[in-house]
Amino acid sequence: MTAPGAAAAHPLFSINQMTVKQLGLPELVDACVESGVRHIGTWREPVQAYGVEKAAGLLRDAGLSVSTHCRGGFLTAIDGAERRAAVDDNKRAVDEAAVLGTDVLVLVSGGLPAGSRDLVAARERIADGIAELAPYAGERGVRLAIEPLHPMFASDRCAVSTLGQALDIAERFPAEQVGVCVDTYHVWWDEAAPAQIARAGATGRIASFQLADWVTPLPAGVLNGRGQLGDGAVDLALWWRYVEEAGYTGPVEVELFNDGLWEREGREVLRETVSRFAEVARAR
Amino acid sequence: MTAPGAAAAHPLFSINQMTVKQLGLPELVDACVESGVRHIGTWREPVQAYGVEKAAGLLRDAGLSVSTHCRGGFLTAIDGAERRAAVDDNKRAVDEAAVLGTDVLVLVSGGLPAGSRDLVAARERIADGIAELAPYAGERGVRLAIEPLHPMFASDRCAVSTLGQALDIAERFPAEQVGVCVDTYHVWWDEAAPAQIARAGATGRIASFQLADWVTPLPAGVLNGRGQLGDGAVDLALWWRYVEEAGYTGPVEVELFNDGLWEREGREVLRETVSRFAEVARAR
Repeated sequence: MTAPGAAAAHPLFSINQMTVKQLGLPELVDACVESGVRHIGTWREPVQAYGVEKAAGLLRDAGLSVSTHCRGGFLTAIDGAERRAAVDDNKRAVDEAAVLGTDVLVLVSGGLPAGSRDLVAARERIADGIAELAPYAGERGVRLAIEPLHPMFASDRCAVSTLGQALDIAERFPAEQVGVCVDTYHVWWDEAAPAQIARAGATGRIASFQLADWVTPLPAGVLNGRGQLGDGAVDLALWWRYVEEAGYTGPVEVELFNDGLWEREGREVLRETVSRFAEVARAR
Repeated sequence: MTAPGAAAAHPLFSINQMTVKQLGLPELVDACVESGVRHIGTWREPVQAYGVEKAAGLLRDAGLSVSTHCRGGFLTAIDGAERRAAVDDNKRAVDEAAVLGTDVLVLVSGGLPAGSRDLVAARERIADGIAELAPYAGERGVRLAIEPLHPMFASDRCAVSTLGQALDIAERFPAEQVGVCVDTYHVWWDEAAPAQIARAGATGRIASFQLADWVTPLPAGVLNGRGQLGDGAVDLALWWRYVEEAGYTGPVEVELFNDGLWEREGREVLRETVSRFAEVARAR
């Protein structure tokens, strides 16, 4: 299944750093150059550990653009001090995105606080937090991308479960400040999602498009079960067509959390992902 | 957390056989009588193993009514012989339901066949299968209850992921032949579900209402992670109010697949469930 190392990556291919988290940032940059990869989605913790300015320089020198910075969010706390801390942390994430030269900060909005059973209220607190963050981000040339997560994450990770809900929040704000992130893994089951992609396109809200396949059985905790492109149930080429028809022409990021992929040699995983991506690109 | 054995179960409480599958049918019947339980949801395999006629007699003699028979469905095969076999098996399930004296057969509709990525086509095959089954069921006084399953089961278990989709299929058929099963575990995340419950009530389609709580982390395979009432994120009393306001007055079935509960003594689990149910009933 491994692609020949010589094949240059599709020009829209972006590798999310978590897909090959076994590679340190300099190794990842080398591997990207080797495979002709032009875009990378960065992740806060490893970038912070490496140094944000230093990472920005490394990526810039290698000619890599940053498609998104992942991730801010977790804005559902009820407690005032926790909410304040979350907003402040998100401002730091915006600052990081600006230093990295990307115009997209992906938000994983947050689930239910302990003891709460109210998803509607959680979504309102998410909107309140975004209201505080959006102008700050806009001033720094960064757009917040609300990512709906699969409903299986509604309680513990993200109360925004559909693209429709994400747009309902995003549309309260200027399009240059708040958009959405469309990830096939999270929306593929939703028959309303194609129309919501069209809505997002018409209002200029598609800030990011991410690919991952759906494979079963899901692992315990379900977080690290995202499938390599082509291994699962999602018609990835069809979803790519939906976002293209909605006017999205930006990088297409592959974000896989998968213990099996993480156990393998990182460069090999990158080459395989480049190859699988090319197959999806051809099929669309 | 165990309730005193003396407390009689709420008159609407129904115990799904799978919740205490560690109990054989005679033991379960004894435990129901002991706890004042009046309704039971039966499961095909253990009932078949015991003998359907014999089970019907045992339940009748104990004064237990059967709220639902679980489960038919799995109607998404593409292959003609497989489809024929599935329809035939569902007819046997209808026959079983009729012998057991229940008017509801719950359907878990089926996921994607191997190699398919088309949920829309899968749902059409489900509708086609139901078209064959509905008159057969209606003639025997049994209603098919389409159960939407949580979207995390879309690929491998049920392509019907929302109550709206279930009703879109059900409404193609007479209400006395096809309804829906509303299970809090599967719909709690869906902001459209309350309105769909009202729609289901207005058109006389609520054939069954089931309670289970949502707890995380989900176990590997995610099937057996349903939470004991009160342990999780679902406002169960609120959902019960929704179905009551929609006109549903039938038994309320507790269906938990949970390895932790199955490891415990079955009568104790039944008493605990009766007690938790009473708390939900009081809170509604």
